[in-house]
Amino acid sequence: MADSNTIRLRVFSLNCWGIRYLSKHCRERYAMIGELLSREEHDIVLLQEVWSEKDFLCLKRKLSSTHPHSHYFKSGVIGSGMATFSRHRIHDAFLYRYSLNGYPYMAHHGDWFGGKAVGMVILNIGRLAAHVYVTHLHAEYCREKDSYLPHRVVQAWELQQFIRHTSSGADLVILAGDLNLHPQDLGNRLLRTYTGLRDSYTETAKFDGCEDGITLIADNPFINPKELCPFEKGIRIDYILYKGSGRVSIQCESLSTTKGSVPDHPFPYSDHEALSADLQLQTLTQQAGGDETRGEQDCAAGKLAELVDIVTEARTEVKVGLYCAERMRYTAARTGVMGMALLLLELAIAAVPWLALRADQPFPRASFYLLGVLCFAILITTFLLYIFYTMEVKALQGAEDQMRLAVGSLQERLRGFPLAQPLNRLCRPLDGQDPCPLEPEE
Amino acid sequence: MADSNTIRLRVFSLNCWGIRYLSKHCRERYAMIGELLSREEHDIVLLQEVWSEKDFLCLKRKLSSTHPHSHYFKSGVIGSGMATFSRHRIHDAFLYRYSLNGYPYMAHHGDWFGGKAVGMVILNIGRLAAHVYVTHLHAEYCREKDSYLPHRVVQAWELQQFIRHTSSGADLVILAGDLNLHPQDLGNRLLRTYTGLRDSYTETAKFDGCEDGITLIADNPFINPKELCPFEKGIRIDYILYKGSGRVSIQCESLSTTKGSVPDHPFPYSDHEALSADLQLQTLTQQAGGDETRGEQDCAAGKLAELVDIVTEARTEVKVGLYCAERMRYTAARTGVMGMALLLLELAIAAVPWLALRADQPFPRASFYLLGVLCFAILITTFLLYIFYTMEVKALQGAEDQMRLAVGSLQERLRGFPLAQPLNRLCRPLDGQDPCPLEPEE
Repeated sequence: MADSNTIRLRVFSLNCWGIRYLSKHCRERYAMIGELLSREEHDIVLLQEVWSEKDFLCLKRKLSSTHPHSHYFKSGVIGSGMATFSRHRIHDAFLYRYSLNGYPYMAHHGDWFGGKAVGMVILNIGRLAAHVYVTHLHAEYCREKDSYLPHRVVQAWELQQFIRHTSSGADLVILAGDLNLHPQDLGNRLLRTYTGLRDSYTETAKFDGCEDGITLIADNPFINPKELCPFEKGIRIDYILYKGSGRVSIQCESLSTTKGSVPDHPFPYSDHEALSADLQLQTLTQQAGGDETRGEQDCAAGKLAELVDIVTEARTEVKVGLYCAERMRYTAARTGVMGMALLLLELAIAAVPWLALRADQPFPRASFYLLGVLCFAILITTFLLYIFYTMEVKALQGAEDQMRLAVGSLQERLRGFPLAQPLNRLCRPLDGQDPCPLEPEE
Repeated sequence: MADSNTIRLRVFSLNCWGIRYLSKHCRERYAMIGELLSREEHDIVLLQEVWSEKDFLCLKRKLSSTHPHSHYFKSGVIGSGMATFSRHRIHDAFLYRYSLNGYPYMAHHGDWFGGKAVGMVILNIGRLAAHVYVTHLHAEYCREKDSYLPHRVVQAWELQQFIRHTSSGADLVILAGDLNLHPQDLGNRLLRTYTGLRDSYTETAKFDGCEDGITLIADNPFINPKELCPFEKGIRIDYILYKGSGRVSIQCESLSTTKGSVPDHPFPYSDHEALSADLQLQTLTQQAGGDETRGEQDCAAGKLAELVDIVTEARTEVKVGLYCAERMRYTAARTGVMGMALLLLELAIAAVPWLALRADQPFPRASFYLLGVLCFAILITTFLLYIFYTMEVKALQGAEDQMRLAVGSLQERLRGFPLAQPLNRLCRPLDGQDPCPLEPEE
């Protein structure tokens, strides 16, 4: 391994909290964000919650000289909210919409309408192919009783699948966004262990930012500290992750976050803190890997075993979600049947005279119509809910099937270890630093 | 280039038309399909329209000895209907759900409920990594006035994106399924030109099957020949496509289709004909490519120019779809506003006595309630439709954005041609036979 070319790459990520007319000081904050970006001239800017395309276009105009290339990912009802700006030409873009993303009737949470997804853009940095991903997972509204946990686990599962399968040809991989996952949360472990992506916060040589790298801080004026409870200071849920390849080694030289306030401005950029990472890419003249040592084999076996545990844990979580979804579907069906029975009874009362009992005490006409309307409303609502829950059940079952398959495949490979199976597929140093990131299917 | 190992790979594809209780002779046909598969022992079996998981499980039991590995892809309300059986171990599975897939209120067409998608399984054939894809695109119900055309074009676009981005690490790629596209349809050209996939029907050395390779034939007793009009004999919409890589060269030795009837059985396997391809894989000891000739450059430039034309055509089609979706959304909004106005008028009549005009001619009570219910129904329906059309608009806009980006990128590369840009990215012989399949982003 020898270094020939060293390239510096600056990556920026921010959840902009850009809900027009609802987010506080939205317009002013976008102006501040635009100023910051045109001043700092990061190579790659990955934004989340840019809910309005008008705001994206406004930023695009402002950054036309510093970041001539951009892409806005559209999905769901109000868009995925994800945008990327780049100094390097974007050659290709691809979007993967998560199969599960909350419930449409939880309109006050709004996640379903946002059409959460992971977006990928491919850009060439010099002669290197960089696959850059931006994502935003479903929010966690209550950590103790998190009804969205199975959805978020499935999203993390699909995110790692998408990155793993679309990054085979990449020289370097970057993922940034609001994962809505704490560093040790199941989804985060699943993502990092399966893809081999490294966390810029834990890997950086130099860090300047909030304590423990938190990105949702109690000091932020847009945040209600009670919502962060029991994490008094805040939580770390925004990330810049990266990995190299046999052709490129990556080091995180420095990572910084904003710290709530912005000098000379009355409020911060957003309710989240912005992340800014300085990555150093070194192109490798010689392909790494090939002759693994016994120690590396053990390490890869250890990683495999860890991965089996994590996927099994995820599978359990998905099964819990499946149980809930099936119960909800059953409830919808039962309520629908009751509505139908009531409607039939009403029709019978209307059609068959002797059921109306005595003529001097007729069934009150207004109540009769009201009840009919109620029955119809119940029928329509439960029908729609039944359809929705069936789709949820299918998606959860699909994820669980894939996880079962993955566990089987991992265990098979684990069993093969003492017999010295082709290990270069399991334990290939990706970028010279980490001897054992796991790339199960390349 | 030299051959060392030759592997024979037999691939089977069939749209099973397996709607329980609705498709004719469903159970008997599954029994026949099971017999055929366990007798023929294809390496890879890719089925579509296996709508019931029970039927999949039944097939799985029957094929447990010949095809020990299987995967059933779940999505939508009734599942994607796609299943795969393999003699080789399946290591990984991944599903991409198309962003557009018809309309839920077109329940008689049913496509929306099917959750159309493309499924990928990764299997190792010897030392080769095979990425095997199965898909089923939205049906074409009326060729002259095909309102689903933009949806199918977007599906073809997403299909080629998915295959292109997830197959970089593959030694060989196989795609089979019911594309619902004629050989020269826009979506088909888009798919083949962008991915470099080759059609086993046009490439095969030996063909045994229906005339012109048609897979939906007029002679099939389950088909109403009128529906095939103006294609009297039938149409070719089911395919087995393939490509190799720098490590593997693929030849299609023979391709066969069923011909409507099955010997000793009163009816055929399905309303579609089954495809069976014999592929011959040859592992290459020496990597192909590296020194392109002028002729190959021209060929790659020609392919690029062709691709620009095709993507532009697709973009136009998507724009037409976008126009329709926006119009439909506008109609939904306008109808909703009218419903709301009527409801307000009703409420005003009820609340303000002088609006009820003369007391001796009151607004009939029954009509009053009925009108109220109608208003509510209009409001709810138009609200749901508005949400749905907005999602359709977003998905179409997203696809159009990606197509614009792709055209820009392709044109940029085309401009660079006379200056001899790095051509190995553009014109890399994939498997020794075709000098110029196009792999824009690897």
